[in-house]
Amino acid sequence: VEDVNYERVLKKVAAYVEPHFGSGQVASYIPPLAEVDPRYFGMALYTLDGQLFVTGDAHKRFSIQSISKVFALSIAFNLLGDDVWSRLDREPSGTPFNSLVQLEVEHGRPRNPFINAGALVVVDILASHFAHPELAVMQFIRRLVANESIDIDLKLARSEQELAHRNIAMAHFMKSFGNLQNPVEEVIKSYCHQCAIAMSCAELAVAASFLANRGICSTQSTRIVNAGQAKRINALMATCGTYDAAGDFAYRVGLPAKSGVGGGILVVVPGVATACVWAPGLDKAGNSLVGIMALEQFAKITGWSIY
Amino acid sequence: VEDVNYERVLKKVAAYVEPHFGSGQVASYIPPLAEVDPRYFGMALYTLDGQLFVTGDAHKRFSIQSISKVFALSIAFNLLGDDVWSRLDREPSGTPFNSLVQLEVEHGRPRNPFINAGALVVVDILASHFAHPELAVMQFIRRLVANESIDIDLKLARSEQELAHRNIAMAHFMKSFGNLQNPVEEVIKSYCHQCAIAMSCAELAVAASFLANRGICSTQSTRIVNAGQAKRINALMATCGTYDAAGDFAYRVGLPAKSGVGGGILVVVPGVATACVWAPGLDKAGNSLVGIMALEQFAKITGWSIY
Amino acid sequence: VEDVNYERVLKKVAAYVEPHFGSGQVASYIPPLAEVDPRYFGMALYTLDGQLFVTGDAHKRFSIQSISKVFALSIAFNLLGDDVWSRLDREPSGTPFNSLVQLEVEHGRPRNPFINAGALVVVDILASHFAHPELAVMQFIRRLVANESIDIDLKLARSEQELAHRNIAMAHFMKSFGNLQNPVEEVIKSYCHQCAIAMSCAELAVAASFLANRGICSTQSTRIVNAGQAKRINALMATCGTYDAAGDFAYRVGLPAKSGVGGGILVVVPGVATACVWAPGLDKAGNSLVGIMALEQFAKITGWSIY
Amino acid sequence: VEDVNYERVLKKVAAYVEPHFGSGQVASYIPPLAEVDPRYFGMALYTLDGQLFVTGDAHKRFSIQSISKVFALSIAFNLLGDDVWSRLDREPSGTPFNSLVQLEVEHGRPRNPFINAGALVVVDILASHFAHPELAVMQFIRRLVANESIDIDLKLARSEQELAHRNIAMAHFMKSFGNLQNPVEEVIKSYCHQCAIAMSCAELAVAASFLANRGICSTQSTRIVNAGQAKRINALMATCGTYDAAGDFAYRVGLPAKSGVGGGILVVVPGVATACVWAPGLDKAGNSLVGIMALEQFAKITGWSIY
Repeated sequence: VEDVNYERVLKKVAAYVEPHFGSGQVASYIPPLAEVDPRYFGMALYTLDGQLFVTGDAHKRFSIQSISKVFALSIAFNLLGDDVWSRLDREPSGTPFNSLVQLEVEHGRPRNPFINAGALVVVDILASHFAHPELAVMQFIRRLVANESIDIDLKLARSEQELAHRNIAMAHFMKSFGNLQNPVEEVIKSYCHQCAIAMSCAELAVAASFLANRGICSTQSTRIVNAGQAKRINALMATCGTYDAAGDFAYRVGLPAKSGVGGGILVVVPGVATACVWAPGLDKAGNSLVGIMALEQFAKITGWSIY
Repeated sequence: VEDVNYERVLKKVAAYVEPHFGSGQVASYIPPLAEVDPRYFGMALYTLDGQLFVTGDAHKRFSIQSISKVFALSIAFNLLGDDVWSRLDREPSGTPFNSLVQLEVEHGRPRNPFINAGALVVVDILASHFAHPELAVMQFIRRLVANESIDIDLKLARSEQELAHRNIAMAHFMKSFGNLQNPVEEVIKSYCHQCAIAMSCAELAVAASFLANRGICSTQSTRIVNAGQAKRINALMATCGTYDAAGDFAYRVGLPAKSGVGGGILVVVPGVATACVWAPGLDKAGNSLVGIMALEQFAKITGWSIY
Repeated sequence: VEDVNYERVLKKVAAYVEPHFGSGQVASYIPPLAEVDPRYFGMALYTLDGQLFVTGDAHKRFSIQSISKVFALSIAFNLLGDDVWSRLDREPSGTPFNSLVQLEVEHGRPRNPFINAGALVVVDILASHFAHPELAVMQFIRRLVANESIDIDLKLARSEQELAHRNIAMAHFMKSFGNLQNPVEEVIKSYCHQCAIAMSCAELAVAASFLANRGICSTQSTRIVNAGQAKRINALMATCGTYDAAGDFAYRVGLPAKSGVGGGILVVVPGVATACVWAPGLDKAGNSLVGIMALEQFAKITGWSIY
Repeated sequence: VEDVNYERVLKKVAAYVEPHFGSGQVASYIPPLAEVDPRYFGMALYTLDGQLFVTGDAHKRFSIQSISKVFALSIAFNLLGDDVWSRLDREPSGTPFNSLVQLEVEHGRPRNPFINAGALVVVDILASHFAHPELAVMQFIRRLVANESIDIDLKLARSEQELAHRNIAMAHFMKSFGNLQNPVEEVIKSYCHQCAIAMSCAELAVAASFLANRGICSTQSTRIVNAGQAKRINALMATCGTYDAAGDFAYRVGLPAKSGVGGGILVVVPGVATACVWAPGLDKAGNSLVGIMALEQFAKITGWSIY
């Protein structure tokens, strides 16, 4: 029998993963991320009727990193509709998130918008419409959460930018194939700043609720994307949202999700709710180790699954 | 507004795709498959309350080919549970269904049970439990459909076996890594026979209904797999069921599915129904071209999607 | 100043490598090869004026393995001339000798006749001209050495055949691309027997002297291949003869060579001599570790280099 | 019988290739290169006794492009000796000259100094010793030819720099693996300028004569590299000097060589001479089409071959 007392559900989940707090490897290649205490754990659940349930460090902000790719894609989708796909595909990559191999084989066309190469193309799309794409993403998120205090961690952004050699390599590589329209430095700068947006589990769950709600932001009752687009973003999250472990995540958790190397994982329960978990230690694929454990248990207790 | 008169839904779908009948390329590498008239089109919908709706050639049998992998996996899953995953993964491959590249990189461990290499491992698992795995699969299907006339097209099976060089290469390659326990010839023979099972859209929709029904076969009211396993097979179909186009299929159709090069595509609407479409012409990824068009339209009209 | 007293040269070389006798890893995947004492060391030098110089175990026979590919190619070259290249290339592979990756990328066309895939195509060419290609190779060698006692180690050949899964995979893979004309089993059987020919360093040096002598066998004064073909076989040995370490070998030793996993390395000094070294322990690339050390020292002392 | 009247040899070669003047594709990705008349043909032969023989446009300067890599390596070799190899390998790549695939597989370590990635590492080595590595290369060449008028085509260099996205990608990629010490922009700028040095066939043949002469520059009688290093540079040219066609070049021509996308090919006949041919049209591997035809004929007529 599935538990519908969400207060209790989150408590059970937290108790279940507590022995594992601190497991996994904190992302080490960006100094400020490497300094985050691996023992943090937070989780938030936001139902479509507007209730928020939290546990642990659910109100502490962390670097959303690749979770930002969901919001950037939503904006690009809104701007261009299906024309977004003229420059990138929507297939799982079968390779690590920062691989250049497939990019060479497929002539500079990224496999999907959630691997780094694809996210850079999305930023490039935004850069053709906004002077400061990272601010457009931040404003978009502020509006979704109705919270003007959400901001970019500038120190982190600068640190990422200094160490972005692999992403710069990717951007120049795509430019050599004609698949980048704006200057590489601008795209990289914007990308690093977008990744450095700091949010809490609670804020992320609220921000993404339009994806569970057929495109309508529940805090504002405004349409963010149309119902078909919301569904399609969820499909992309389900097949490509957790790097080269999307199949395993679908198998174990069974919900559309997007993870970030900051240790956050955002999940969508279409028609029902959104949730976000945060635990900084990562597994080999780059997803939060304790986060996935928590979500697996969460899906088991609630019985929620799209499959 | 979504249409719930399924009779009419199928008629609308058939009318929508009729101008495209015969599009795509019929699988050419197996002579008997190459001779199939590309203009066939059939579709069947089987709801969990036991109603069957059909259109076109929905009662004409065709070669189920890779759709058999769903049934073989269900049996293996039932036998071994999660131990199935000791020898193969559950990730989208990012490469064509018959690629050996990833197999070399990952030391003979297939990416998932729905690409050829993974399906051969599943047959190998069955071959350690059954004298004739292909008969076990056939019997399993006969029981699911409650129809003893379902059979293997022996002429086709033999033809496939003669031309199975690439699959034989794969099997020996995995054997060189120690990931095949039974003799290659036996595994290949069984695999080719399993692929040559002939069924109609109607029969396939009925046979797979346990996947929409939390593991319970509706014709027999017997448990085939447990609810968690049914959900997980659906997850695998959603992420890996349509070769290297699973992301695009999720985007366009939004339902778990398994296709075969005979032109069939089986889809699951969890908790609601199963459906099967058949049109022999394939697209570049090896999925039925008209079949996907039909399913895209079908999902649009019914509003059914897991996302 | 270079030393021209070859008796003394070989003594110096043997003394130089003696502290390293037994280094490297004996090929472990074929049981009879794995049992060979790794401390053997032999070397032979055969000058074009017909003098033979030896040191250590230069008269003890070992399994020539891939060195046989030079002789098989010479026969195929004689039969078909440049038509040999209609089915394979002559480029270094940049990958291990038993890789299937490049074979997939290049549609079943092997990179060169000295990697396994290419050697299988050469055997296939011979199999279209001889009932027993392996006997043709053996007879060819017997004639070159003028020694009828040279033979195939049948026990080893059978053992290799039983464990040839990777080579069988390659052969079926090429057959799937239409690049193998004879039955896979025949080609594999012949290949395994050809590799199991047993010869000593002295015999190999004598057998290959036609390559240093513009195609003329010095023991028989008969033309084996024409001068251009001899030169071209040497070019292939220089660029592709030592697996994925041909560049390093050219750098360190500077002479055309072909190695085998039995621990033998055959080298050609065009216009001057041939030499063969044997030490069973292999380096990571699959070449004799002590053998390369010996040849590096040998080239240094004699000053012989083609560059 | 081989012809030793070199005047006549070059005439024969020019007559042989004349019907093919203009064949091949001029490098199109750099505008100034794309404008070069494809019908140019020149060839020069410089013997170790100091005689120069020329035909056609042998005194017209063209962009040496990748031929500059031989001179840059010679300087680096002189500076660091075998320590050069701490950061790159000396193996044929088996992939196109500008591929990033192997660089990813081998963690940022280039396969050899003559593919772009490896050449960038060599420039990086020079950049740690010289304020302006490209000027060091130019001065080195001026000294070898005893001609102060040799210069960099600055317009071409700037054009290359603007379009160097793929090389910039490679440089940042290697930097991400820690295999680039100087700023990417500096390395790229220097690389593009080095490639844009303009020389004639006659000047290139003279400049490289130290490679045929055991390291001693014949115009100056000064030691440029030691005899072992000269031999080793020749070995690298023979195995890696003509991109992914080094095996074919060794087979057809049989001499160490380095080509450039400007259409030049420099060859070394150790102990005898150096030669250079120029014809702007390239084959699919990026080597001068008519240039290789000319060298094949040249090698045939002279009988020169290292094999």
